[in-house]
Amino acid sequence: MALPKIETCLSPSLLHLYDISESIVVIIDVFRATSTMAAALHNGALEIIPVDDVDKCIRLGAEIENSITAGERDGQVAPGLQHGNSPLEYPREFIENKSLILTTTNGTRLLHMCSDASEIITGSFLNLGAVCDYLTAQKKPVLLACASWKDRYNLEDSLFAGAVYDAIGHQFEMNCDSTRAATHLYRQAKPDLYGFIQDSAHFLRLSKFGLQYDMEYCCKIDEHNVLVKLEGEKLVRGN
Amino acid sequence: MALPKIETCLSPSLLHLYDISESIVVIIDVFRATSTMAAALHNGALEIIPVDDVDKCIRLGAEIENSITAGERDGQVAPGLQHGNSPLEYPREFIENKSLILTTTNGTRLLHMCSDASEIITGSFLNLGAVCDYLTAQKKPVLLACASWKDRYNLEDSLFAGAVYDAIGHQFEMNCDSTRAATHLYRQAKPDLYGFIQDSAHFLRLSKFGLQYDMEYCCKIDEHNVLVKLEGEKLVRGN
Repeated sequence: MALPKIETCLSPSLLHLYDISESIVVIIDVFRATSTMAAALHNGALEIIPVDDVDKCIRLGAEIENSITAGERDGQVAPGLQHGNSPLEYPREFIENKSLILTTTNGTRLLHMCSDASEIITGSFLNLGAVCDYLTAQKKPVLLACASWKDRYNLEDSLFAGAVYDAIGHQFEMNCDSTRAATHLYRQAKPDLYGFIQDSAHFLRLSKFGLQYDMEYCCKIDEHNVLVKLEGEKLVRGN
Repeated sequence: MALPKIETCLSPSLLHLYDISESIVVIIDVFRATSTMAAALHNGALEIIPVDDVDKCIRLGAEIENSITAGERDGQVAPGLQHGNSPLEYPREFIENKSLILTTTNGTRLLHMCSDASEIITGSFLNLGAVCDYLTAQKKPVLLACASWKDRYNLEDSLFAGAVYDAIGHQFEMNCDSTRAATHLYRQAKPDLYGFIQDSAHFLRLSKFGLQYDMEYCCKIDEHNVLVKLEGEKLVRGN
């Protein structure tokens, strides 16, 4: 039987080049939307509702019982919201059995751009293993979709795409230079992922807000190893 | 004095993210448009006229004395044109003092998309040194613009961007993950560039047409070390 195809999209501005109608799309926003999603669901959040803008976030927060509104713009908690976009803000004692309504600069936008996909899951180093296990089991075509930074290529999201291919690539058909480059980079970074990632635009930007420990945490492989899957309008724990 | 900025654009679909009005744009289409341009001008071509489509190529070929029409679509000489897009097709005894009217799938299109740039030059491994010397001397902002393959990221063009940064990056200000990734890749590839590039989509595609030797030739650093510069509508030798 022919192997399913795996490809990597390096920016939302390149998404039109890929046919995702039969594919599982893995939304990747390592710093920090998809890391926060894995942490919150692993720590018992009921669901995560990703929304595009702050106003909608506030409105849903008023409507939905037992919910938390969260989101950042340019690394700061957005005015009108309660919490930020750090995986460390959502320990079990705080988030268990609550709904997290989340808006972020890049990740939630890309997620909504991929509504044509057959399935959507989200990926981060915190749940790398769960992502790989799911993709391997499903045997469907895969698009690894990097949220990037305002449509500009970023290093950390493509490193995650490379980590997926490094782990399970042999079970897919691949002829995609974005995936090749991501895998070369990941194999170079693998011995010291956090060290490697420190020379990147996003690391330098978020460091100005004192978020180094956040980013170090986002590099912890399988720390919150749950599958994060879109069901209707909500991200829920899939395993 | 502040250093000028250097950035890399990985696909024409991302060009809108960059302000090129004050910049030197380096058009990169290693396989094979910009390699052919360096070879032809080094071997004495009078000028190269890059055009978007085959019809315009044929029309200009009829108008301009002592000219050659050339271009490919999907790796084959386009119907109605005389020659292809291989640097090996343009030895001195053939091309000296002639005008080359050239249309290619990706490179000439990107070149025309960059008409707002302050200056345009073209780059390939065959003229890496000349590109670096020029950029160093000009002290202006630089955009390394990869032609890619039908807007999809490709490995060979970003490797060239990495080679430029590897050589002269210390003379620029850089905070661009595309440039960082390209440089990591180039440093990995440098000991055996041709070997590294063989695992790429474009290499595999062109190999089906028996063009391996062409691509090996395109990896020869400084083999045709001339500056290729757009003056009006024409590419001419700039050194």
